[in-house]
Amino acid sequence: MVVSPPHPFDPITPTEIQLAVRILEATFPGVSLRYKRIDVNEPIKKDVVPYIEAERLRRPLPAPPARLLYTLFHRLDTGAFYKAILNADSRTIVYAKELPREVQGPIDVDEITEIEEMCMKHPAVLAEIEKMQLPPGVTVCNDPWMYGTDSETETRRLFQCFMYLVEVDHPQNNHYSLPCKFSPVFDGLTHELIRMDYLPGGADHANTETQPWKPVKTIQYAHDILDEPLRTDLKPYIVQQPEGPSFTSDGNSVYWQKWRFRVGFNIREGLVLYNILYDNRNVFYRLSISEMTVPYGDPRAPYHRKQAFDVGDAGFGMNANQLSLGCDCLGHIKYFDGYRNDSKGNPVQLKNVICMHEQDNGLQHKHTNYRSGAATVVRNRQLVLQMICTVANYEYIFAYIFDQAGGIELEIRATGILSTVPFDNENGKTVPWGTNVGPGVMAPFHQHMFSFRIDPAIDGFKNTVYYEDSVPMPEDENNPWLVGYTTESNVMKTSGSANTSIDRHRVFKIRNDNINNPITYKPVSYKLQAAPSQMLLVSKNALGYRRAEFATKPIWVTKYQDDELYAAGEFTNQSRRAEGVETWVRRKDNVENEDVVLWHTFGLTHNPRIEDFPIMPMERVSVMLKPDGFFTKNPALDVPQSAQAFNKSTLHAEATSCCGHTGGASVSKAKLYKRLD
Amino acid sequence: MVVSPPHPFDPITPTEIQLAVRILEATFPGVSLRYKRIDVNEPIKKDVVPYIEAERLRRPLPAPPARLLYTLFHRLDTGAFYKAILNADSRTIVYAKELPREVQGPIDVDEITEIEEMCMKHPAVLAEIEKMQLPPGVTVCNDPWMYGTDSETETRRLFQCFMYLVEVDHPQNNHYSLPCKFSPVFDGLTHELIRMDYLPGGADHANTETQPWKPVKTIQYAHDILDEPLRTDLKPYIVQQPEGPSFTSDGNSVYWQKWRFRVGFNIREGLVLYNILYDNRNVFYRLSISEMTVPYGDPRAPYHRKQAFDVGDAGFGMNANQLSLGCDCLGHIKYFDGYRNDSKGNPVQLKNVICMHEQDNGLQHKHTNYRSGAATVVRNRQLVLQMICTVANYEYIFAYIFDQAGGIELEIRATGILSTVPFDNENGKTVPWGTNVGPGVMAPFHQHMFSFRIDPAIDGFKNTVYYEDSVPMPEDENNPWLVGYTTESNVMKTSGSANTSIDRHRVFKIRNDNINNPITYKPVSYKLQAAPSQMLLVSKNALGYRRAEFATKPIWVTKYQDDELYAAGEFTNQSRRAEGVETWVRRKDNVENEDVVLWHTFGLTHNPRIEDFPIMPMERVSVMLKPDGFFTKNPALDVPQSAQAFNKSTLHAEATSCCGHTGGASVSKAKLYKRLD
Repeated sequence: MVVSPPHPFDPITPTEIQLAVRILEATFPGVSLRYKRIDVNEPIKKDVVPYIEAERLRRPLPAPPARLLYTLFHRLDTGAFYKAILNADSRTIVYAKELPREVQGPIDVDEITEIEEMCMKHPAVLAEIEKMQLPPGVTVCNDPWMYGTDSETETRRLFQCFMYLVEVDHPQNNHYSLPCKFSPVFDGLTHELIRMDYLPGGADHANTETQPWKPVKTIQYAHDILDEPLRTDLKPYIVQQPEGPSFTSDGNSVYWQKWRFRVGFNIREGLVLYNILYDNRNVFYRLSISEMTVPYGDPRAPYHRKQAFDVGDAGFGMNANQLSLGCDCLGHIKYFDGYRNDSKGNPVQLKNVICMHEQDNGLQHKHTNYRSGAATVVRNRQLVLQMICTVANYEYIFAYIFDQAGGIELEIRATGILSTVPFDNENGKTVPWGTNVGPGVMAPFHQHMFSFRIDPAIDGFKNTVYYEDSVPMPEDENNPWLVGYTTESNVMKTSGSANTSIDRHRVFKIRNDNINNPITYKPVSYKLQAAPSQMLLVSKNALGYRRAEFATKPIWVTKYQDDELYAAGEFTNQSRRAEGVETWVRRKDNVENEDVVLWHTFGLTHNPRIEDFPIMPMERVSVMLKPDGFFTKNPALDVPQSAQAFNKSTLHAEATSCCGHTGGASVSKAKLYKRLD
Repeated sequence: MVVSPPHPFDPITPTEIQLAVRILEATFPGVSLRYKRIDVNEPIKKDVVPYIEAERLRRPLPAPPARLLYTLFHRLDTGAFYKAILNADSRTIVYAKELPREVQGPIDVDEITEIEEMCMKHPAVLAEIEKMQLPPGVTVCNDPWMYGTDSETETRRLFQCFMYLVEVDHPQNNHYSLPCKFSPVFDGLTHELIRMDYLPGGADHANTETQPWKPVKTIQYAHDILDEPLRTDLKPYIVQQPEGPSFTSDGNSVYWQKWRFRVGFNIREGLVLYNILYDNRNVFYRLSISEMTVPYGDPRAPYHRKQAFDVGDAGFGMNANQLSLGCDCLGHIKYFDGYRNDSKGNPVQLKNVICMHEQDNGLQHKHTNYRSGAATVVRNRQLVLQMICTVANYEYIFAYIFDQAGGIELEIRATGILSTVPFDNENGKTVPWGTNVGPGVMAPFHQHMFSFRIDPAIDGFKNTVYYEDSVPMPEDENNPWLVGYTTESNVMKTSGSANTSIDRHRVFKIRNDNINNPITYKPVSYKLQAAPSQMLLVSKNALGYRRAEFATKPIWVTKYQDDELYAAGEFTNQSRRAEGVETWVRRKDNVENEDVVLWHTFGLTHNPRIEDFPIMPMERVSVMLKPDGFFTKNPALDVPQSAQAFNKSTLHAEATSCCGHTGGASVSKAKLYKRLD
């Protein structure tokens, strides 16, 4: 229930979804429309900055920027696919354009449901199932996938349905344990069967005709159908905040420990953070995961096309879990909701898609003066904003973690279920591009490549990206003992890409050339603690390379443009090339002391372990943004001392309890600090 | 109070310290001895393995291995420095040998106290203080440092005392803010002043005569002498375990979630973990930090000798904080104690030097079946063993973190206070090898290099170290679509070193060639998720390189030998070269399917930020050991579901509460799983 108009950074509201439908119906009178996407469009930055600066400086607010909506839809009469930008304030169309035939929009919820159901009823599929001669009680299901790309000329909208056996009638039966060897390809609009693919059964490229099924037991993960008994010795661990949390919020605006920011949400990126201030200073304008792609390393058809773009093809917001109190998040939890549209244009509420809570991450800083034994101990309280996305088999958990010393961490966890393929792996058979995870089932190697889009505002909206390498000093008279080292600095003056370097301890930083730190005498700055990763393994000559060129370099710097949000471009589904960062940097814009955007590609080359099956212990990768000369000293000095009266820890029996000071062990604690007059 | 004999892996007891003194007094009748080190000596591995295997397999125990003690001491008559190994069972000396003149033992607590006090009374020091013309109330203190090495011929035991001004009479006054420009060098045995060093005052190598002090305000960190008020909006965050912890312990033996291991402690390495089993299978024999070194990058005398070896020169055990309930650790805490000796041979208790507790690290695994909306959610409960060491200005927090899926993480946090030097930095002056952190004070660049010693026992005591790189397949008929990638494996057959590689996603693994996984068909194995880091920056021609050659390569593999424990050798204080891993690998032992040791060097190149001053927000680096084909599926499947009844989270007001299942947002939750008969 929206009482006041949405803030420029607020997610779309149900009223706005309904307004969009009315505007488009009025624009195409008498035409049936099928709505693929109705969402907020990013506000025009030059129009929103005066507004948010007035908010920050507590000045009278100017007119807010126009509230724009982004829509994608099909005309059911002609089949044409359209994009339209709407102005929700004036209730008008800004523009509507028909998209070229080869442009495929993202998948939507209703579409995937239709494809899945249609596949299960198709005669060709039923015929294959018949050939398997399944025993009673064993049925079949499918996961529809985006078809991907292996051609420069395909214009049909295609889906590849991967088929699995359902051995146990249970809502969490693990069908990924029993993949089938046939896979239909459908036209997503006409629902025609294009082709029945047969998957390789062995270690080579030969595919397999559908044979009667040789029963294999499913490797389950759901607790009530496990073979083994559950552990009984895990004791409760309860987090309580009897005085409530340290955060306050007003709608999507959050305040915590000198941080202030707005929580955004859209169907494509999911959680987005806007207008991040620390102690009322600008730090970041916008943070998001702008794309991720997961290419598979199994070289054989049809797997060569397995390269989902989970943001552009589908949407993290669309796939965000609606979180449960006490299951997903521990402690005192606040939730944020979102909205999406269905194919008829009805708003659908997405409850609890983002959770927010505090956590304790151990010690933040400590020092014991060994002479006196007196110590300063401050704990590391953090604020977490989290979203969990289910993308068919996989789960991704995205968390932004704020600390009290000006740091922001992006932590990504991968869990859920490996993508599996059939493989007749009895008698010692293996493949060099995958891991056997069970009888008859293999998990192929793959990479998860993320693009972290960082739109900085380090003390203002004109910044510069540079990097510093740590290098030994030459062996000359300035370095007579041969121990010296310094840093070499390189400014990224024009838009382009850059490499990380462990050997040179390369650190990328973002600074404001117009504001100097009065003690370091250098411009105020933030540094990126990157996650240096192996880049895309596909050949430069593969279509997958051109579609995901963002994933070939760890660092890209572009000059801000309003419509440049997604590292692999706007339309990734069945794309032939990206039209993302690699295209924008070719403009060679000046990016020194400009409104810049830094895109950090990082990832996980994931060669599955058998321990990742049937459900994967989370694998974690993490990137941090930390102040570097932004402050004149540690900004968390004023966080109170960690004390037992506050923390209420309990002592395990057998030990004796301690006393006041923590002593450095190097000097007996009885020795106090002495005055030496 | 020791009731039963210590286990072979138990720390030294006070009785044993006293026994050592009696044995040595009997061996050197009538000679006054000054005891530098009395500690356990590592048990002989071939003697202890049958014992621990009998424990593991619940067989009758053989005789335990001999309980050996390690002692270092001086004869006060001749000044000679001795090492002796004692047998505490037979109460005899195994051997005693006089060490060469150039071998310096580590520092000890009493010695450092004496040097510090002697320095403050020395006439030459008092004369310099006089020259500073300090106002009333401002006094001087010093931090004695190991002298380091810049000569192949020095045989004196030397200390360099770094001097600081104490502006405020408070037990936590931050003297590091006001470094003085003179620094005496003393002979540690005779207490003679060897030399008065004068430190550079500017950006060049020129040193500075002591001048009258121009008052500068100290940048403080202790809460009650801060300029700014404390934050008042941090609400309590309390961890409770009303049913107690999930761990059990019996002396130093710990059991938690199928893990069983023994907690060791010694003065040099501090916390050591022994005999780590998961589900009664051998995983690791011993884990420890075998050395760390911190070379500084300021090329100018006397800083060229700043390269502490905090394990070998001093000792993490010696410097371990005695922890306070509710300050250092949150939740339900168990402590372990240790003992050291003083210079007279008296036992000194080190209470609470290791803490153990559980923590919750978010989600462990989750999957939502998007068709049914049903989800399996399991949280990531961990067991932490932690030690905090104060090394003059710096603090290091070492934590071993066990998870329920067979993983062990070594996490190291650096905090405390930067090492500072004086620098007349008014009017824009900077140096290329350091950061201004306040008026008149600079923090030089430096590296923290750690050696993690991993003595594996992957399902047994003969293992092999190998590494796998992920590489694209050639562009040929086996890879027609140009997407394929595989792994290339390299076995380390002879002792040596190896590099990490991000570009090739190199992963080091440890396997047991004698035991195959029945599903992957590969040997059972653990993998090392390393922390690829910049290696030592000092020149190959510098003495500091030869002293710390372990820090020039990220991976070393040696064949186990009982006395090869410390990566830079046994005696690091004022060493001229290491005699550690770089020496042992030259034997070119066969290390394939052998009793091997893997040494992982990793670190932080630390170019200080001003935000690291006056006390440093912790900087974290982390290494993980994870099963890789050790199990036949995820070993944590049997951890119960995360549920509100167990976790008792609370909902922040304003939101409405949720309902049962977490839904994947891709399908409406009303759609249950359907049978397709």
